[in-house]
Amino acid sequence: MVVKSQTKLIKNLQQKKYRNVHGLFVVEGIKTVNELLDSSFKAYKVFAINPELFGQKTDKLEKISAGELRKLSNLKTPNEVLGVFEIPPAKPLNFDQWIVALDTVQDPGNLGTIIRLCDWFGITQLLCSKETVDCYNPKVLQATMGSISRVNVVYEDLSEIFGDTHLPVYGTFMNGHSVYEEKWPEAGILLLGNEANGISSGLHSFIHKKIGIPQFGENTAESLNVATAAAIFMNEIKRVGVIQK
Amino acid sequence: MVVKSQTKLIKNLQQKKYRNVHGLFVVEGIKTVNELLDSSFKAYKVFAINPELFGQKTDKLEKISAGELRKLSNLKTPNEVLGVFEIPPAKPLNFDQWIVALDTVQDPGNLGTIIRLCDWFGITQLLCSKETVDCYNPKVLQATMGSISRVNVVYEDLSEIFGDTHLPVYGTFMNGHSVYEEKWPEAGILLLGNEANGISSGLHSFIHKKIGIPQFGENTAESLNVATAAAIFMNEIKRVGVIQK
Repeated sequence: MVVKSQTKLIKNLQQKKYRNVHGLFVVEGIKTVNELLDSSFKAYKVFAINPELFGQKTDKLEKISAGELRKLSNLKTPNEVLGVFEIPPAKPLNFDQWIVALDTVQDPGNLGTIIRLCDWFGITQLLCSKETVDCYNPKVLQATMGSISRVNVVYEDLSEIFGDTHLPVYGTFMNGHSVYEEKWPEAGILLLGNEANGISSGLHSFIHKKIGIPQFGENTAESLNVATAAAIFMNEIKRVGVIQK
Repeated sequence: MVVKSQTKLIKNLQQKKYRNVHGLFVVEGIKTVNELLDSSFKAYKVFAINPELFGQKTDKLEKISAGELRKLSNLKTPNEVLGVFEIPPAKPLNFDQWIVALDTVQDPGNLGTIIRLCDWFGITQLLCSKETVDCYNPKVLQATMGSISRVNVVYEDLSEIFGDTHLPVYGTFMNGHSVYEEKWPEAGILLLGNEANGISSGLHSFIHKKIGIPQFGENTAESLNVATAAAIFMNEIKRVGVIQK
């Protein structure tokens, strides 16, 4: 049974300020809950219609009815299980590997898709400006499809990090130098900007090279969505090693 | 002034069946309305708060108030203008050029993003199975950012088209042959499948080659979103010509 204080907590965790106060976040769905239980994330409580599905993995289980899950859930069609997990402490960035950096990306679907892309391309470090949407936002988590358990997402002041690192910063621009001609180093920072305004002018002085994706149509689209642009840039960085083999 | 019958028509056009009955669709926002007025699309009616913004481009203008626009609009924040345009007759496919084909893509945001990508990469032909979401769906149009005016979207039975064409069909699969090793022809068909189920088994016999995007992480994402996968495949097909120059 779900007690009233738990219902209130779970509803509150839809909001960033309560997630920060409690150090907790909510995920839904068998696949994502399983991926988090299999990872280093710590479960605080797992409410499941069929707790036996998760019995091997956690002792934080609570059996609930489909009706109770409907009350707790943020989804139109609740999916068997709702997990409350601890927000892990941020791990330090490793400057020997590629880092994707986001400046004020605001759409939860875009952030979730970028986390999923990082996971696919084996880029395990995502550095977000403090204005970027929270990665524990339920819509972000839904779009990551479980990849949040394999990507270290860090929120920092980008200019501080960029000012301190030896890594080259590749800034992505509509009219940047063709990404096809780039010779990528072993490690670097790929910086993507806000959906409407691109990269903040305050960060321009930290950029070593402006890169872009050539347009092919005669009368082409004005821009690419930030998540699809991220897909193409990450593919370009990673494909090199494969091609050269 | 907007008369009652016009309000009803515009509301009905949110639904595919009425769009087909009337041969009309609705778009909102200055940018998209302008792009359609500049294209071969025919305006049926343009309701604008400031008709002088569009006076050079069409004689189908009607001045309305902000309050009237709010009543007609499908957006939370209506944006100056709502246009009703004629659905153009489908243009025949040109089999001398690349075609992107979609099998039962159902998310409007994914279809809109793919139309925008086609426009960016100069692929002006998008062939959709009849089960794919309607390209005149308001959510699709919003995601295309005006690119709908430059991409010929055709709904056909894919097996009929594939059975008749000499073009090679590249089917995209999780474990397909690495896209990095492909030598692309001048023209071909890139086939992408449904978000959850991939390419229907009934189409497998038409596929000349199964291709895929290599995974890089050790413990990677289960799949890529169909729109981000489309971005990477289109980039791979188009970048070749540039690199070889």
